[in-house]
Amino acid sequence: MSLVVIGTLAYDTIETAHERREDVLGGSATHFAVAACHQYSPRLVAVVGTDFRPEHLRALEERGVDVEGVEVAEGDTFRWSGRYEADWNTRHTLETQLNVYEHFDPKLPESYRDSDYVFLANASPSVQMKGLSQVEAPAFVVADTMNLWIDIALEDLKQLLQRVDAIVMNDEEARMLTGEGNLIRAARRVLEMGPDYVILKKGEHGAFVMGPDVHFSVPSYPVEEVVDPTGAGDSFAGGFMAYLARVGDHSPASLRQAMLHGTVTASFCVQGFGIEPLVEAGAEDLAARAADLLSIVTV
Amino acid sequence: MSLVVIGTLAYDTIETAHERREDVLGGSATHFAVAACHQYSPRLVAVVGTDFRPEHLRALEERGVDVEGVEVAEGDTFRWSGRYEADWNTRHTLETQLNVYEHFDPKLPESYRDSDYVFLANASPSVQMKGLSQVEAPAFVVADTMNLWIDIALEDLKQLLQRVDAIVMNDEEARMLTGEGNLIRAARRVLEMGPDYVILKKGEHGAFVMGPDVHFSVPSYPVEEVVDPTGAGDSFAGGFMAYLARVGDHSPASLRQAMLHGTVTASFCVQGFGIEPLVEAGAEDLAARAADLLSIVTV
Repeated sequence: MSLVVIGTLAYDTIETAHERREDVLGGSATHFAVAACHQYSPRLVAVVGTDFRPEHLRALEERGVDVEGVEVAEGDTFRWSGRYEADWNTRHTLETQLNVYEHFDPKLPESYRDSDYVFLANASPSVQMKGLSQVEAPAFVVADTMNLWIDIALEDLKQLLQRVDAIVMNDEEARMLTGEGNLIRAARRVLEMGPDYVILKKGEHGAFVMGPDVHFSVPSYPVEEVVDPTGAGDSFAGGFMAYLARVGDHSPASLRQAMLHGTVTASFCVQGFGIEPLVEAGAEDLAARAADLLSIVTV
Repeated sequence: MSLVVIGTLAYDTIETAHERREDVLGGSATHFAVAACHQYSPRLVAVVGTDFRPEHLRALEERGVDVEGVEVAEGDTFRWSGRYEADWNTRHTLETQLNVYEHFDPKLPESYRDSDYVFLANASPSVQMKGLSQVEAPAFVVADTMNLWIDIALEDLKQLLQRVDAIVMNDEEARMLTGEGNLIRAARRVLEMGPDYVILKKGEHGAFVMGPDVHFSVPSYPVEEVVDPTGAGDSFAGGFMAYLARVGDHSPASLRQAMLHGTVTASFCVQGFGIEPLVEAGAEDLAARAADLLSIVTV
């Protein structure tokens, strides 16, 4: 089995109620890949600028990420800056500099084309489609999206939804896409648009997966101190997909376990800035939290 | 085993985005008792005015509620009127007429004093204490509360917390009582105030119970159409306490099952006005939803 993520490597500047950090290594593919590594080494497709620090690429490689698919383009790396309100529920984007990402045209190395498990991180649906079309015979494709694409690229997104096995979205996005306030109804509407499964994330309130053969809900892992939630969604996806790639199937039983593993993986992410807490956590820490969470949800 | 609830019988006037209903039979003890009846017949302590309709008392009796503890006092029955925003998350109280409830002095009939499982529905902590003090040797006491008492009767509430086995509160109340924004930390702080267990309700996001030997989290039952959430919390408590009274213990395993049964009981409540949907649902409907929810949470 093989796992590939197509997404962004970025530098983030993050303000919380307590702290401000500049040029933290971030991006959807970074969080996904580092999060996946506890269970399974992913292949990474992204573009960076000439300012991307070589030690950051080396750090990914040292964790086991295959970085052959990282293209270096003339210009600066994607930069994002945001601020969180004290209750974490509101995030303000202060600045987005697309830089080299503006013309991102994902190119999968020859060696990636046989990938089985594919994660299309948040990007315009047409870019996601370009990436996907280079995978010869994917076993299970999951896409992420965001409000912006629902707003400005709805038709492309609808086409993408017919090509993927699962879509991962948060509550707000699901409501926006379907016009349904009730999340269960929203999830059903999303399924009518094409994917077999919808994974609906509710932040601190956990997540659920719904599909023809599974409906499974899991609370978030109880974290007592959030430091920075940036990347939590991609970390969830990393833990989720790495579990599936590791066991080599996406049966209902595996999807339930994958939700559990995605949840605990994300719980590490929010306890520090950038990828720091994910890097510090070992596979045994992940296993311990998975066991904890299992005890919290077992009737 | 025996189960007693001390609370209110009331007439509610409810406005939702879709409908308005006047003088619906409501009140904490009504919802609790009707909800409990699917599993276990409760004893009821409350006061009503001379305007309380005899057929409403008969309806409770016919379901198996012991109404010997319902006192009829000169005056009108407690009336509450409220309006829900379209997203259900905001409730405005339009009017509260305490009427005979203003001087409620709970008196337990002799036959109730040996009660084992005791639910002190939302009331001033001093009224709750008066009720509790008439139970000779309770096995397990659960109290509800609200923001008002945290605001105006905090010392009494703190004393009550040292006398009960468990407190049930919603997220907003837990944050207000403890000053902690994080719900896990808030729950730990509540436990430091005295009770063995805290049951923290998060509305559509489910609930969790925390104590020395249990930490269990359950999502809400997936309801696609909410009609009126009034009484959901008391219905949860009714299903929860009735499960414990039915099995006759409050072991960690029973508390987990009780959370599950409370959750599905509340799911019926929100699907109609007042007690209608709870009355219509049979014990077999409750069992079917409990099995459903079990499959939704089982990894």
